[in-house]
Amino acid sequence: MAELSDKAKALFEDPNLLCVGTVNSDGSPQVTPVWTALDNGHITFNTAVGRAKERNLRRDPRVGLSITAKDDPFKKVDIVGRVVDFIEGDEAYAQIDDLSEKYIGQRPYPWRRESEQRVKVVIEPVRVHEM
Amino acid sequence: MAELSDKAKALFEDPNLLCVGTVNSDGSPQVTPVWTALDNGHITFNTAVGRAKERNLRRDPRVGLSITAKDDPFKKVDIVGRVVDFIEGDEAYAQIDDLSEKYIGQRPYPWRRESEQRVKVVIEPVRVHEM
Repeated sequence: MAELSDKAKALFEDPNLLCVGTVNSDGSPQVTPVWTALDNGHITFNTAVGRAKERNLRRDPRVGLSITAKDDPFKKVDIVGRVVDFIEGDEAYAQIDDLSEKYIGQRPYPWRRESEQRVKVVIEPVRVHEM
Repeated sequence: MAELSDKAKALFEDPNLLCVGTVNSDGSPQVTPVWTALDNGHITFNTAVGRAKERNLRRDPRVGLSITAKDDPFKKVDIVGRVVDFIEGDEAYAQIDDLSEKYIGQRPYPWRRESEQRVKVVIEPVRVHEM
């Protein structure tokens, strides 16, 4: 497991979007921006069960990540990671509320839908490339 | 070829970073943010010959893209694209100067290196998903 530098950690502490890259079952790339937070040296984000990136990462845990400071495109870190856990239930719902507070200042998360099941995706950084 | 909406075009006109996802030869995902511009309905960015994303896209033209307004995370568009051209030479060097002016207000591009060969990557949008 790679260590994140203080500079990389600071990018995750501010409400910057994390770009998540996965690979679809047909071998094509898939990219989406997500809200993110660190948790004990791991990178985490929250999604719903059944979304493309969640299905892709359950099939292949390798993930490409990139985070850039929203006010400075030269503060950025690219990370190669591996998903080590998918956490559902209360912890996933608590996390989406935390992220909502961090990114849009609203708690609870205002777009919760009964039809969707939240999941917290936990990623181990494998290789970190700072610009 | 898919059409970009006016909202999507506006995201490309402002100096927002485009997240580019490709697939490495080992099947793992690779993600990096780039400067971007539209050109006749195509999405373009500039890189150097030999970089991971350029090598990956020469091998497999399928590309995942996502662009978000830097001042509003809810203005975003995800795009599935296909690379239709790699343009080297004068046009690629003119483009990096244009992008440098757009993104950091400097012309010419201040980090030009003699050792690297610039390339303009031209992408046809195949499927556009607006949030």
